[in-house]
Amino acid sequence: MAANVQDAIMLFGDSLTQAGWEEGGFGARLQHVYSRKLDVLNRGFSGYNTEWAIPVLEQCLANQYDQQHVPKIRLLVVWFGANDACIGPSPQHVPLPKFIENLKHIIILITPPPVNTYQRAADLNGRDPSLALDRMFETTKEYAEGVKAAAAASKVSVVDVWTAIWKAAGEREEGLSKYLWDGLHINADGYMVVYEALIETIKVKHHSLHYENLQPVFPPFVAFFLLSSLVDFLDRWTQVNQVK
Amino acid sequence: MAANVQDAIMLFGDSLTQAGWEEGGFGARLQHVYSRKLDVLNRGFSGYNTEWAIPVLEQCLANQYDQQHVPKIRLLVVWFGANDACIGPSPQHVPLPKFIENLKHIIILITPPPVNTYQRAADLNGRDPSLALDRMFETTKEYAEGVKAAAAASKVSVVDVWTAIWKAAGEREEGLSKYLWDGLHINADGYMVVYEALIETIKVKHHSLHYENLQPVFPPFVAFFLLSSLVDFLDRWTQVNQVK
Repeated sequence: MAANVQDAIMLFGDSLTQAGWEEGGFGARLQHVYSRKLDVLNRGFSGYNTEWAIPVLEQCLANQYDQQHVPKIRLLVVWFGANDACIGPSPQHVPLPKFIENLKHIIILITPPPVNTYQRAADLNGRDPSLALDRMFETTKEYAEGVKAAAAASKVSVVDVWTAIWKAAGEREEGLSKYLWDGLHINADGYMVVYEALIETIKVKHHSLHYENLQPVFPPFVAFFLLSSLVDFLDRWTQVNQVK
Repeated sequence: MAANVQDAIMLFGDSLTQAGWEEGGFGARLQHVYSRKLDVLNRGFSGYNTEWAIPVLEQCLANQYDQQHVPKIRLLVVWFGANDACIGPSPQHVPLPKFIENLKHIIILITPPPVNTYQRAADLNGRDPSLALDRMFETTKEYAEGVKAAAAASKVSVVDVWTAIWKAAGEREEGLSKYLWDGLHINADGYMVVYEALIETIKVKHHSLHYENLQPVFPPFVAFFLLSSLVDFLDRWTQVNQVK
């Protein structure tokens, strides 16, 4: 059984979160910079929208009875919208007002990335059987705006990944292919943008939680050197005093 | 507070484990393939030897009172030897018999990687102030043998990273620079060897724990499609029967 020795950052979202430990992923980068300080929990659920995710979030948070035994969530990062923004009749679709309402439950929000509909259409068309395009550039953009609206209404922080990736891509849909590997999912270059935007938000809005402002839970190994030097010194001091 | 929804793999070791979430690191790779199945906990402590690590391990494992509330450790991976093998008078040095004794506490063992003393000497020499070489090729090899002896004595699994990296390097010390970035610490190519060796051991010796043999804790999103289709069907069936 794993004792509760470190508090946690919980990353809660869809496949974009679930895949955050792929090579160059933002989850792995976060776990790296927070090593010995906070655990980073992968609570990403591929394909989920906010409607399906909320009951799961309730299970991912401890009940009153268990709270004293489990890791404290120092930061809850919520990243949805990429699936809610599916256009009807997709069963993943959640209407925009309902999506915004769903998000109001929740603490750092992240906007979904822009969709490259050229890449996405080619990817879906190439499947067996081939599938029709299920996301529109403008619709996903509206859902990104929805995340920002929910953040403003709930007075929580927001990491605007949509805008960060859009700007990085030179504000051209075709330019997004540098950051998305299939028009929807983020590659290592894209996750670098996500990681930098998230860390910047932590630095500015949650300053005391920036990894540089946290001490490792267990002491650095040099502490043992100092301790063994002190023991040596006391040994010698005792010997010298006995000789006298 | 994070509820206990997933069991865990705990990676317990020194800096080689702590850095396992760097780009291409084995910890990040493991967390990726185990997403929605098991959490992978980073319990790596840079510079620690087995002597300093054992009291920390006791804190990382839950006491009897807390056991019902905390994640079950499905696999404990222990990776030490790179620091214990420091040559005297380094305070990190632990004598070989003591090192083997220390390891007998513990579940999957990993051997320390071979040292490239050319790279290590150059790295230490280039520091300010410059430092003398603190590890020998043959000594670290003996500690790798010590890990295997402890594993055999305790009848636990062992991942022989020493041999895997040595073979990958063409059994030449200079060839190790492809896998080590400073003669001691492992780069992304080296962590790929570690990851493959560890997953192979899990596959062969702990078959039911291989990620392909575990089900996600929460259902895949297609389950919601089936559920909503069933609801639709029942709706229509009721309507048809009412019309009749």
